[in-house]
Parts: sequence; C-alpha cells; structure tokens
Amino acid sequence: MNVTEKERMACGVHLSEDEQSVVILDQTQLPNRQVWLTLNTLEELCDAIRRLAVRGAPAIGICAGYGIYVLAQQIHTDDFAEFSSILERQTAELVATRPTAVNLSWAATRMLSVVTNHQDLGVPQIRALLRNECISIHDEDIRMCFAISEYGLSLVKPGDGILTHCNAGPLATSRYGTALGPILLGKERGIELRVYSDETRPLLQGARLTSYELQRAGVDVTLICDNMASLVMKNGWVQACFVGCDRIAANGDFANKIGTSGVAILAKHYGIPFYTLGPTSTIDMNCPTGDDIRIEQRNPDEIRTMWYREPMALPEVKCYNPAFDVTDHSLLTAIVTDRGIVYPPFDENLKKLFANEEV
Amino acid sequence: MNVTEKERMACGVHLSEDEQSVVILDQTQLPNRQVWLTLNTLEELCDAIRRLAVRGAPAIGICAGYGIYVLAQQIHTDDFAEFSSILERQTAELVATRPTAVNLSWAATRMLSVVTNHQDLGVPQIRALLRNECISIHDEDIRMCFAISEYGLSLVKPGDGILTHCNAGPLATSRYGTALGPILLGKERGIELRVYSDETRPLLQGARLTSYELQRAGVDVTLICDNMASLVMKNGWVQACFVGCDRIAANGDFANKIGTSGVAILAKHYGIPFYTLGPTSTIDMNCPTGDDIRIEQRNPDEIRTMWYREPMALPEVKCYNPAFDVTDHSLLTAIVTDRGIVYPPFDENLKKLFANEEV
Repeated sequence: MNVTEKERMACGVHLSEDEQSVVILDQTQLPNRQVWLTLNTLEELCDAIRRLAVRGAPAIGICAGYGIYVLAQQIHTDDFAEFSSILERQTAELVATRPTAVNLSWAATRMLSVVTNHQDLGVPQIRALLRNECISIHDEDIRMCFAISEYGLSLVKPGDGILTHCNAGPLATSRYGTALGPILLGKERGIELRVYSDETRPLLQGARLTSYELQRAGVDVTLICDNMASLVMKNGWVQACFVGCDRIAANGDFANKIGTSGVAILAKHYGIPFYTLGPTSTIDMNCPTGDDIRIEQRNPDEIRTMWYREPMALPEVKCYNPAFDVTDHSLLTAIVTDRGIVYPPFDENLKKLFANEEV
Repeated sequence: MNVTEKERMACGVHLSEDEQSVVILDQTQLPNRQVWLTLNTLEELCDAIRRLAVRGAPAIGICAGYGIYVLAQQIHTDDFAEFSSILERQTAELVATRPTAVNLSWAATRMLSVVTNHQDLGVPQIRALLRNECISIHDEDIRMCFAISEYGLSLVKPGDGILTHCNAGPLATSRYGTALGPILLGKERGIELRVYSDETRPLLQGARLTSYELQRAGVDVTLICDNMASLVMKNGWVQACFVGCDRIAANGDFANKIGTSGVAILAKHYGIPFYTLGPTSTIDMNCPTGDDIRIEQRNPDEIRTMWYREPMALPEVKCYNPAFDVTDHSLLTAIVTDRGIVYPPFDENLKKLFANEEV
C-alpha cells in the first residue's frame, strides 16, 4: 500500500508544504472550531503536546518525528558533534512532555538513530535522511492503521454494538485510527456498526473527538457519560469493546486513557469481549508489566473548572487526576495489532509476534 | 430522639416560619451560591423537583410532604369531597415529576392517607393533621439518618477510605445523610475517614454537593472523575463503598444514580465491600425485582451542553441519558437501614425487617 502526499496532507498532523513546520489540527478546539496550528519551534512543539492540541499516542509519535526534522533544519551547523548534541537535547525535552505513551519516545529514538547511524555521511545528508524517516513514520502509521482496521473488522459482524473509550480515531493516529479503524473501514464497505462513545472525563475526548469523527463519517454513534457504560452493557447493546493503548507491557498489561480498566472490568462482568487495538510500536518489550509504566498526573483544575462556565467544586477541594490507568492482561480478550491478533498467553505470544512467528 | 424546630429549620428543605411555603436551598447553584427558594404553588414545587433544585430521594419526600400541606392550606373549601379531590389531583401531578425514587410517592401516599382516614373529622381538622404528618415525615427522616449513620459507622474503622457516588448527604436527606451519614457522624466523634467522591456526571452532584458538604465539615475528601474509581480501588485506597438508594426492590436489587452499578461491579472485582444506605421508606416490597423499577430518561443536553461554556459535542450527536441504573443484589454486601443492617439473602431478610424480626 503506497501512501500519497495527498493522504498525508489530509491527516491531522503533517509537514507544511515548505517543510519548515509541523501543521496540526488543534484538537482542543473541536468540535466547535477547526483551527490548524503551525509549529516551528521546540517550545511550540512541546506546548502543543503538553496541552493536548495534538494527542493520541500514534499522532504524538508522528508529530515528534516531523518536529525533530523541522528542528534539525534549524540547526545551522554542519559540524556533526554540535548538530547531534543540539538535536539530542531538543529531542529529550520533547520526549519529556508526556511520559506514558511509548510512541513518542519510540519515534524520537528512530529519528536519533538516523543521526547516530550515519555519522559518516555528514550533516546535510543526515538532514535528508531525517526527512525520509519522519515521512516513513507517518506512512507506516497509515498502513498500520489500515491493517489493524482489517483485523479488527474480522472480530465483529454487521449490526454489532461497539463501546469505545476516549479517542483512538484518525485524529489520534493518521487515517482510520486504531480503535475506530474497524468501524470506519466497515462504514466504507457498507458494514454498519452501532457505537457507544464514553465521553471520557475530564478532557471529554469521547464527546469532543470520537462522536465528532464518527458522526461526520455517518456512523450510528451514541454519546454516553462514562458511568453509563455498565447500563449500556447490561441492556445487551454492546457486543465488543474496542479501545486504543498508549503502552503495552511484555505481559499484555497496557496503559490507556483513565477509565479503560473500569470498562474492561465491566466487560468481563457482562461477558463482553474486550480488545485493545494498536500498532506494534505501542508494545514495549522492555517494560515487563503494567507496574513498570509511569502514569502521568495532570492538573486538578481539569476536574474542578476546565470547560465549565463556573467552578464545579470548591477551589480548596483536593482532586486526584491521573491521565491513564493500567488494564490487567487478564481482562483482555486480545490485542489487535498491524501484524495480527494476539491472544493469551500474551507474554509468550507477544514474543512470537516480534520473532515474526505465527501468533 | 426529639427533633427541635431549630434542627428542622437548619435543613435544606423546611417549612417557612409562617408555614405558607416550602423553603429549599437551591442545589443547582451550589457550590458557588447559597440561594434559598420559597415555593408556594404546585407549579413551583413541580419545577423545583423536576429541575433538581431539590433532589435526593428522602429530601424529595420531605419536600412533597411539606408541599402537600402548603397546597392543602390554599384549598379554600371545607367541603370534604371537593377538598380531597383537588388535593389528590395536585398530589398526582407532584408525584409524576420523578418516577424512580419511591420516597416521593411514599410521602404523598402518607399525606393522602391522613385525608382519607379522617373524613369524619372535617377539613379544618384534616389540615391540622396534615401539618403534623409532614413534620413527622421530616422528623422521622432526621432520626432515620441518625440511626443509619450509627449502623454504617459500625462497618468501618478510623483511617478507612470510603468511595461514594452521587450525593446522599444532608442536602439529599435532612441531617447527616444516608451514605455520608457515617462519615459526618464519625467526624463529630473524632473518627477520621478518607473519602473519594465520584463527580457523578452528567449533573456533577459529587463535585458540586458531596465534596462541598464534606469539605465544609472538615472531612478529608478527594474528588475524582467517575472513570477514576477503578484506579483508586486498585491503589488500595478504598476499604468500603457507601452509596444511597432511590428504590430498593424486595429481592435487594436497587435503583440509584446512574453509574452505581458500575461502582458495585468494580468493588466486587477488587474485593471491596459495597453498601447501600437508606431509610426503610426506600424499600418497596411491592416491587419484586430491579426489572420492575422504571428508569427516568433525561434531556440529552445535560450531556452535550449543560454547565459548559460551549457545546462539547456536535448538536446532532445522539445521547443516552438515563438518570439511574439498577444494581443487582448479588453485588451488594449489605443494606444499611435505620432498623439495622440487612445481609443476604435479601428477599428473606427484607421480609423479616418489615415483620420486625431480627435480621
């Protein structure tokens, strides 16, 4: 599958035409306004990632790849040591913006490897290779999403109800998305699914992004508050849960948006299959279990006041605001990757996946 | 335990000094403003209940009792047939405002029984008896909450973490509350508990009311989004869940704020005891199981736009907005009532409770 320039430019994260900037659709302003931001500096890139103008583990990875290429062009030296030292420092700062998702550091590592592996070629040639690499990261994501969507679609039948949490659609990735991929690919092929979208507090990615993406694609989507998932499942309306992932440990435990573990427990209680969908770049074989995944804590005001006309709690009330939680692999029916569907035992089968064996 | 006039007047719902109106603290304006409303007409009473200016099953019952007395004083006839027919019609309209909580119809039935049982005494005397009855409903609730708080407090030890959902504190009842009763009574006695308050979307009663009531009482309270309950439990911070109830069926299934069943499933998964606390008036022995409880559906805009500076979802996105869900009795450790703690088997032990036998 060849990816065209046009397909890349249609994505929520892409390189500007002059290749001097990263262009992103500001996800914080959806669904009310479509605002495209042009990011040129390290500060602008870090800020966009930190305040979630760009979010979704694969999208952050793509943004980091393009960002590092943009920054590399601004380092006006052909001295390798100076060039690589500046780029490494800037990359480290970029990676530190969000600690949980693996794709950010994965993309950064790929870009820096281009530098260290081609020391002999000289800086101008390295810049050209960095360009190829960041475009590859993007193109691979599009292909991976397509493959994930195909595998995911094989798990459901027309008319099924799918519950999803947070947003793992095109905005969070490139095209199709991961968790939303099978639904959007199904729609293209005339396979209609019904979707229940958790609104996903505190930042409401399900309300603002998932229901927006699905509604615009003509999918039958119903928005619910997070605490309604139990009743929707009890009503018999859900045949499968599809969620994304920010980091998958070697034993199958995985980090995803806060609340995902609760959805998984409910699904198990009601006997509903629960799948996480993500590219193999989300699998961190250096991370033995979910206990080794660092969970980002965010500002309490996201709960107390953000979005609201006026404060919804006394300002002195303490809030606990973790951005992610870890879902135990025992709650997971399968991991849907671009290389196939991985079933338990996950520790064994994830190793096989990376050894390119049948899983 | 005698209830004083001063105690009654300190409650969020009470009779005005001239006894011509019901006075309520407008719960929709908390925590930012303390606004007291004076309700004089059937329309004002229905509107206050419908838009949740007064909410919480026991508080609605108290409000209905006072409301029916206020309306009875405005029926300027001493003809029994005319008086009772007007009052019955008005009461039916009041009861129809919210179908799920049993306390509303329970209080209304008590008030109307005063009328039908004392036909021989004449209308002026019936008005006086209605006054006694509505004050009794209030006083009994204060005594019931105190008894529930005592029983609930016996289930925890100092330093325990309690997770609660929605609001079942003094605002939802009279004094102490039901689910919050043991916490507030414990505080008075120097028994410190840590509380995790689910914010409770869509109307945020946990953020606006529970964290407000507990913070003001000096209790160690942490506000979380509903989808964070799983992680808080996994962290080992919760030793018991205390929730209120709007209607308990004869088999122990019970309706409470949407999301309660999800909390119960999580608690079971993590091995945490899960209790519902409510007065015996919440138990509806005429309702065999949870399947027989009618669930109120509310306006989708509560999810899409309410509270927010701007819409958080496309206006055309469908929403499912049930106000309550039913928690299966199999998920329930015990029902804490004013007459004692009821353990499984609930069908048998609830019958014993009403037969005044040991449970």
